[in-house]
Amino acid sequence: MGNNVVTLIGLLAATLTTTSFVPQLIKSWRKRETKDISLWMLLILGAGIFLWMVYGLLIHDLPIILANSISFVLVIFILFFKIRYDRGN
Amino acid sequence: MGNNVVTLIGLLAATLTTTSFVPQLIKSWRKRETKDISLWMLLILGAGIFLWMVYGLLIHDLPIILANSISFVLVIFILFFKIRYDRGN
Repeated sequence: MGNNVVTLIGLLAATLTTTSFVPQLIKSWRKRETKDISLWMLLILGAGIFLWMVYGLLIHDLPIILANSISFVLVIFILFFKIRYDRGN
Repeated sequence: MGNNVVTLIGLLAATLTTTSFVPQLIKSWRKRETKDISLWMLLILGAGIFLWMVYGLLIHDLPIILANSISFVLVIFILFFKIRYDRGN
């Protein structure tokens, strides 16, 4: 398979996994209810995504760098909502 | 940085992002409450993780293949709980 197709699959994978956090962010923001979401998931996921970003930079892999930079910001926002709304309830 | 160190960082990143779904799985299974989790997140995430797995296979990247195969199974289980418990409530 050509390099371009492979990169395209990587970018599509990156777009999907990164985009997936958007509906969660919107749902948490609208409903102000986050208790069913695991705090540990968000903490470990955030740390892991950060390391993926570092890994992407080290192997110069564009899909990995892009995906994980944006995912990291989104997960941090969901984490922020989790801490804020769980405390309020 | 040596190739071994880079692979180690990738494997650590992989371990963290994959492991992150375990506390969510345990929490959802124990509490039987999943309504705050976005269904769209799980669906898009599942599709994205599947494509990452394909991407990893195409570029022969061990951390990406390993991480996403296990993550995929875990996310499918969380999705199963989400569908099951939301319907029951």
